[in-house]
Amino acid sequence: MQTNNIQKLRQKGPLIHNITNIVVANYVANGLLSLGCSPIMSNAIEEMDEIPGICQALVINMGMLNTYQLESMLKAGKSANKNNIPVVLDPVGVGITKFRQESINTLLSEIKFDLIRGNAAEIAYLAQVNWNSKGVDAGSGNADLSQIAKKVALKYNCIVSISGEVDYISNGKKIAEVYNGTSLFPKITGSGCLLSAVCGAFLTLGKNKFELTLNACTSYAIAGQITQEKLSDNETGQFYIGLLDNLAKLDDKTVQKYTNINLKESE
Amino acid sequence: MQTNNIQKLRQKGPLIHNITNIVVANYVANGLLSLGCSPIMSNAIEEMDEIPGICQALVINMGMLNTYQLESMLKAGKSANKNNIPVVLDPVGVGITKFRQESINTLLSEIKFDLIRGNAAEIAYLAQVNWNSKGVDAGSGNADLSQIAKKVALKYNCIVSISGEVDYISNGKKIAEVYNGTSLFPKITGSGCLLSAVCGAFLTLGKNKFELTLNACTSYAIAGQITQEKLSDNETGQFYIGLLDNLAKLDDKTVQKYTNINLKESE
Amino acid sequence: MQTNNIQKLRQKGPLIHNITNIVVANYVANGLLSLGCSPIMSNAIEEMDEIPGICQALVINMGMLNTYQLESMLKAGKSANKNNIPVVLDPVGVGITKFRQESINTLLSEIKFDLIRGNAAEIAYLAQVNWNSKGVDAGSGNADLSQIAKKVALKYNCIVSISGEVDYISNGKKIAEVYNGTSLFPKITGSGCLLSAVCGAFLTLGKNKFELTLNACTSYAIAGQITQEKLSDNETGQFYIGLLDNLAKLDDKTVQKYTNINLKESE
Repeated sequence: MQTNNIQKLRQKGPLIHNITNIVVANYVANGLLSLGCSPIMSNAIEEMDEIPGICQALVINMGMLNTYQLESMLKAGKSANKNNIPVVLDPVGVGITKFRQESINTLLSEIKFDLIRGNAAEIAYLAQVNWNSKGVDAGSGNADLSQIAKKVALKYNCIVSISGEVDYISNGKKIAEVYNGTSLFPKITGSGCLLSAVCGAFLTLGKNKFELTLNACTSYAIAGQITQEKLSDNETGQFYIGLLDNLAKLDDKTVQKYTNINLKESE
Repeated sequence: MQTNNIQKLRQKGPLIHNITNIVVANYVANGLLSLGCSPIMSNAIEEMDEIPGICQALVINMGMLNTYQLESMLKAGKSANKNNIPVVLDPVGVGITKFRQESINTLLSEIKFDLIRGNAAEIAYLAQVNWNSKGVDAGSGNADLSQIAKKVALKYNCIVSISGEVDYISNGKKIAEVYNGTSLFPKITGSGCLLSAVCGAFLTLGKNKFELTLNACTSYAIAGQITQEKLSDNETGQFYIGLLDNLAKLDDKTVQKYTNINLKESE
Repeated sequence: MQTNNIQKLRQKGPLIHNITNIVVANYVANGLLSLGCSPIMSNAIEEMDEIPGICQALVINMGMLNTYQLESMLKAGKSANKNNIPVVLDPVGVGITKFRQESINTLLSEIKFDLIRGNAAEIAYLAQVNWNSKGVDAGSGNADLSQIAKKVALKYNCIVSISGEVDYISNGKKIAEVYNGTSLFPKITGSGCLLSAVCGAFLTLGKNKFELTLNACTSYAIAGQITQEKLSDNETGQFYIGLLDNLAKLDDKTVQKYTNINLKESE
């Protein structure tokens, strides 16, 4: 898959509206800036009609969800749908409390999402497949993740991306596996949240959502992989900062050189 | 302009009250600490009478404004005025939604600000001059920024500082242009927000608000410039962290050596 | 004191529930991840019954307290007590406003804490001993900190840890002084807040709370000390990031080698 998406992204510099939390807001904003995008992080209910109207994508992150945020998300999501901009859902820790379980039902019934991106535990929850979640971390399980991605994609008629040692991306029919990445991603906070925002940014580039999501996940994984090349396995602080550097330096040629994916057409 | 403001700042170590947001709170706190100041970031309505009474300056940042924050800002601003400590306004993204447009009217009518610091789009909005804003970023336009700074300074009887490739500082009469800086500032989040806090810190040093603001903006721009000297143009992560180092290392002698400003007395 | 606590911590990977603020949430999460733990930062009232039930410790941080947070803390604290998991209190800036003074009374009367960790000003306030606090920073005073730690430990029947140039840890009877550390800790934001979370993580390892708190404070101080070894006194940005690296690299052997403590049995 040869693209010039990163170049296009830096030229376009889309405004990305993120509704997110106190843990990752700074990192998501810096990550988007590193890719040449402009972040807006507003979550004030009074603005949620207007902000999606000036943005090119909306990314909704359920980490640290509360009733105020939920109301903001619903209002922004509906506005984004009305304005025909792509909407990404990051269902952080979705299964761990009744409040999140109920909230995601509301979000999924009232907003049309173009992409749901989460870790294995989160997407397994949406597929109603058994999985040992661990708080907001991926936990462990032995279900078939590519089938889970496909199932959830069909259920919600959108792209689904499961991030982990291998990333699985499906549109309900095709399934792509991304083997790029680094073991340092789960050792920093917000690496998944930033990826959701990066996917939102890529989705502003066209209508081929599956390919754009795949390219976003691959590009991000490669930025992480390149960052780790110069680091030892436990330099978490250096990785946190170096990932921003490498997102800023990343170009399509590098992505093409490193890409290690497996694409399957489903029967 | 030869000063020993940085030395004085480190000796005094003023307490700076910041009402700000989830994106930049951490960076603003670390930046102030790097300059020898003590940050307080409280925004609880219950405390807004008392906190300005123990602080030496108040910095109000409109990024991620909501009704709760607005009430806190009003209460803290009035307390700061009563306690005669300098108050800085950072009108983040002021023009982009009706809620922010209405809120800034309330803030500007109920609080006396000593300094308004923002990017070109934000200050142009206050001057009612046409400008292509881009979310919370500076956007683009071709109005005369020095005249805009002067106009807003006269309108609100305060110092105005516009940050960008060139910084413009005006008290309604004098206009200073600061040519120091780096192209990396707009590539990280919160670089303007931290500058507003740094201006608040400098304003605790005396009554000559124009000179203190000019020195704050110049010093900060030089810290950025020195940080970039050892970096390539896209090491955004290294710049983010290196700016803190160079704020911690900065001294008056270095500022004097690097200072590149143009000062005009208006007729 | 020879332990294998760090090894045990990395093997166990406990889930630590933190109720904290916009300034330090990101750093606390990254610090816990660097030690092999999993952070959850939820503060939604709707979830506060459930979250402590899936976690191994709760850490309550009073920085930027508001009425919503207070309600969350009370609900989570009671749930943690019911679930018999350790609860840590970080009484950030406790004495500086009436709201915080009243709130801590409520917290201390309704929740049983296993550990209270703060700076000299905060613990002196709890001991009703005179101290010149400086916002949320330690300020200065000349009271006997080991006696203050002991007094507060007896008063609230818990472990007390005072962080500073020397750390004092007491269970009301024993007093330990930790001489490890670095002058860079007070120059970054959240260094104390992260230590509180690290103490919470160590307290998941057993019932010997005094020894575990002592080992947590010593280990953390040593990680800071090792970070400073390669830095000059004002590289605050590098220290901020390097501390995460050194928490990720830290092992029991290193802690044992560096440990510099003084343990006193009280009569």
